[in-house]
Amino acid sequence: MKLATYKDGSRDGQLVVVARDLGTAHYATGIADHLQQVLDDWSFLSPQLQDVYDSLNSGKARHAFPFDPQRCMAPLPRAYQWADGSAYINHVELVRLARNAEVPANYYTEPLMYQGGSDDFLGPCDDVVCVSEAHGIDFEAEVAVVTGDVAMGSSPEQALDGIRLVMLANDVSLRHLIPDELAKNFGFLQSKPATAFSPVAVTLDEFGDSWRQGRLGLTLQSTWNGRTVGLCDAGEEMTFHFGQLIAHLCKTRNVRAGSIIGSGTVSNRATEVDGKKEWARGYSCIAEKRAIETIQDGKPATDYMKFGDIIRIEMKGRSGQSIFGAIDQKITPLIK
Amino acid sequence: MKLATYKDGSRDGQLVVVARDLGTAHYATGIADHLQQVLDDWSFLSPQLQDVYDSLNSGKARHAFPFDPQRCMAPLPRAYQWADGSAYINHVELVRLARNAEVPANYYTEPLMYQGGSDDFLGPCDDVVCVSEAHGIDFEAEVAVVTGDVAMGSSPEQALDGIRLVMLANDVSLRHLIPDELAKNFGFLQSKPATAFSPVAVTLDEFGDSWRQGRLGLTLQSTWNGRTVGLCDAGEEMTFHFGQLIAHLCKTRNVRAGSIIGSGTVSNRATEVDGKKEWARGYSCIAEKRAIETIQDGKPATDYMKFGDIIRIEMKGRSGQSIFGAIDQKITPLIK
Repeated sequence: MKLATYKDGSRDGQLVVVARDLGTAHYATGIADHLQQVLDDWSFLSPQLQDVYDSLNSGKARHAFPFDPQRCMAPLPRAYQWADGSAYINHVELVRLARNAEVPANYYTEPLMYQGGSDDFLGPCDDVVCVSEAHGIDFEAEVAVVTGDVAMGSSPEQALDGIRLVMLANDVSLRHLIPDELAKNFGFLQSKPATAFSPVAVTLDEFGDSWRQGRLGLTLQSTWNGRTVGLCDAGEEMTFHFGQLIAHLCKTRNVRAGSIIGSGTVSNRATEVDGKKEWARGYSCIAEKRAIETIQDGKPATDYMKFGDIIRIEMKGRSGQSIFGAIDQKITPLIK
Repeated sequence: MKLATYKDGSRDGQLVVVARDLGTAHYATGIADHLQQVLDDWSFLSPQLQDVYDSLNSGKARHAFPFDPQRCMAPLPRAYQWADGSAYINHVELVRLARNAEVPANYYTEPLMYQGGSDDFLGPCDDVVCVSEAHGIDFEAEVAVVTGDVAMGSSPEQALDGIRLVMLANDVSLRHLIPDELAKNFGFLQSKPATAFSPVAVTLDEFGDSWRQGRLGLTLQSTWNGRTVGLCDAGEEMTFHFGQLIAHLCKTRNVRAGSIIGSGTVSNRATEVDGKKEWARGYSCIAEKRAIETIQDGKPATDYMKFGDIIRIEMKGRSGQSIFGAIDQKITPLIK
């Protein structure tokens, strides 16, 4: 099942069911107005939405209309929790190697995760409004899951059962604000502006065997100003799967329905070609490209994003069809 | 105006208007079911609630009933944002002095603030359920504000206009999990379990001149197992006022209606008595008491909280009447 939220001028928009091929959609009116309601009462409401989905896919939905990602808010336009992991240790290794820092041993046994702001998400085609190019504007292409209730102290396996939906995320980062902010030890705040999500959120049954024990084994494509810069495999190299990420989060507290948990930048290891390291799959954030350049040439060559830049993030199934629709955003300046 | 949320078995409870003296209450039915709705549409809905409030205070409300804080959820049982400052620099100074660490110069010019979890708040009389006493269970008595929409880049003065309500908070902390977590630089996560809030949330007009430019000049009382351990002045020594805290948060992003911003542990400077430092006002968290003991005697003498302990946090007006009702919680073990 695929769900989206259409803009209607309200803060939470209108829930729509979207056909598997993203061609048509149908309002969920009469079942639920907002996705949060569905997550609050999943076992009762989701079968009703599934019926709409089935009729859409079979071309029998009476009030179907063409689906337009431009009209989408984030599937959850605001949420009660957004916790983002850094689950691809290769990303951490590259960034640390570039500044000659060791990876602490416990990074391999316990996920890194930060609490993000969740009051003001961006739709997939909304502008990324930034105060200044000097902040070092970067995209981060990620996979994210939306949970039901997961009780305090749940195991990674129990936590896997709490996953309701999967989305893509652009966890926009202001790189030049990060060092000072992290030096204060209290985590990210100003360096993480509003996060954007894909047009649709997708249930696990849609992925077949591409979803394997909390990892999504498909290719995440990042296209920056029309040039494909990343074709990263989101599956095998995810050091901590989503069940482990959620279990980490709920170790001392309950995780409640509608919580969004991110994977962190999807990242793949280099391969050796003629004794030289190559990162043929590219990158899912500019910081990683700059780290690779620093490791290879002593300094970064790629600059961060400028106003007017376009970032597109998409994931296709094995048949080549877009699964989530594309995040497709322009970087724009704040006008006060 | 004073607003509370009554438990009704649902996730968001039922909004009630509470009389100034906390004696009676009235359902807000017909105006709004939930506090978030009011915050989403404040200028339209709050005058209607004010009418109910006025009739309650004059004893003319037709369906008033006795107000019972035991039946309260947090005023916002879940929120789209909880960002907690550390606005009393005295607290930071004491904790750092106890471990022979300097206070970085920018701590005096820029607030410390972390992003907290907001999906599962506790009501004022709900048990604090903890996994283990060995985690070092501490209370933190704080003042918190709830905002309307505050645009990206707002000044501290503009941000002050965005404040809608004031509450008290118990920002429960697991002290022994903090060092490892902060060493990872990504901020608090497991070390900050669910936060509790006072029975009622209060509009600024209730405070008269006790509310001065973003600071609440009243005494915050913390009582641990029946013994008053803190009578701290929340006003003058707040290094960064709430407008500054919100402006810090919205520097690179919008802050949306229903965001909760906390002051951090309320803390007062020592006074010199016969050449000796005395902290006559006590403390608003155990970690601060332990820091003072370490400074004075080389090691802490006060242990953290045990299962069965009771923490009560309250603030009284100049007339001696409780303003927010009391946070009154028992520490209990997680039963799986």
